[in-house]
Amino acid sequence: MKTILIYSGGMDSTTLLYKLLADGDEVRAISFDYGQRHKKELDCAAQICKKLNVPHESIDVTNLKSLMRGSALTDRIEVPEGHYEDESMKQTVVPNRNMIFISLAIAAAVSAKFGRVAIAVHAGDHAIYPDCRPEFIEKIDATARIANYEAIEVHAPFLHISKGEIAKIGRTLSVPYELTWTCYKGLDEPCSKCGACVERAEALG
Amino acid sequence: MKTILIYSGGMDSTTLLYKLLADGDEVRAISFDYGQRHKKELDCAAQICKKLNVPHESIDVTNLKSLMRGSALTDRIEVPEGHYEDESMKQTVVPNRNMIFISLAIAAAVSAKFGRVAIAVHAGDHAIYPDCRPEFIEKIDATARIANYEAIEVHAPFLHISKGEIAKIGRTLSVPYELTWTCYKGLDEPCSKCGACVERAEALG
Repeated sequence: MKTILIYSGGMDSTTLLYKLLADGDEVRAISFDYGQRHKKELDCAAQICKKLNVPHESIDVTNLKSLMRGSALTDRIEVPEGHYEDESMKQTVVPNRNMIFISLAIAAAVSAKFGRVAIAVHAGDHAIYPDCRPEFIEKIDATARIANYEAIEVHAPFLHISKGEIAKIGRTLSVPYELTWTCYKGLDEPCSKCGACVERAEALG
Repeated sequence: MKTILIYSGGMDSTTLLYKLLADGDEVRAISFDYGQRHKKELDCAAQICKKLNVPHESIDVTNLKSLMRGSALTDRIEVPEGHYEDESMKQTVVPNRNMIFISLAIAAAVSAKFGRVAIAVHAGDHAIYPDCRPEFIEKIDATARIANYEAIEVHAPFLHISKGEIAKIGRTLSVPYELTWTCYKGLDEPCSKCGACVERAEALG
């Protein structure tokens, strides 16, 4: 298959990148700079793609920021600490983020004559991010199949597994997790307290 | 209702703007600069919103151009002449354009706490643009309702009527069609030969 991967440079999408390559896919990776504090993930994405010889494009969508207001990941709101299940974690939701990213990746797939778009949403995301839930993936996949002359599939193979299970798959594929970036705060070192850090530490055990 | 209008400055979306205001909606208009030759439509959009005192934002998405390749509206491909039904008109399809625009407008709606997004696709578009067809609108509306904590409706009231019928509605609302822009070529004066010009002339009679 020829697959456009929505690639953040974090542990889930890096595992998916390794999995797609192991499955024999031809992969192109796209990352989005949407003004996130943790822009460091974009450097990780570029570095890992270079290492794997995977074409990688980083798209600057920061001028869409006025449309995607109100998230602690992009605005001057403090990044909450704790688990994804915590109510405060809703502050990290970026309005319609995955729908926008998937729509852009579909355009890239149509332009490149690739048949699918892959995204590394997983079961642990469901508690807090509406645009990571099975119902969302099912409906946007149905839309992607008829929005252009070319039917595009939205492929989300981690949709029903946990971050811990993703880490297990990653270990069998020798994913270099030390090269990935997870922390939401975007400081020099991971904060170890934000939702993303907590979930990562638990998954990697 | 509070509605975000995807507003090109052409005759269909200008008629929809007048209709929404006549229906008592609170409207904000968004236009997209995606590198179209007929950028003139953006000035028309701004001018008409100013006249109506409607908040208007023009979003520069030209850096997404690498993802939306291969259309005569944006690339160095000649703009075809004739009717929308003609095979050559497929060259004016921009990959996944309406899915991207609607996704961005949904983000704006969520951010502004508006409940719906309006788009002026109509029956005459169905022949050539897959992302103007009832099936597409139905599926993206279903996606929009569950992609965020806030359910957003995708409103396309002209979906089943022709451009001629839109013009009739517009006349009852005194839409100033002389201020709108339609021609795909973006020269100083409309070319009168491209699909958009031909369809406009037939609709306005």
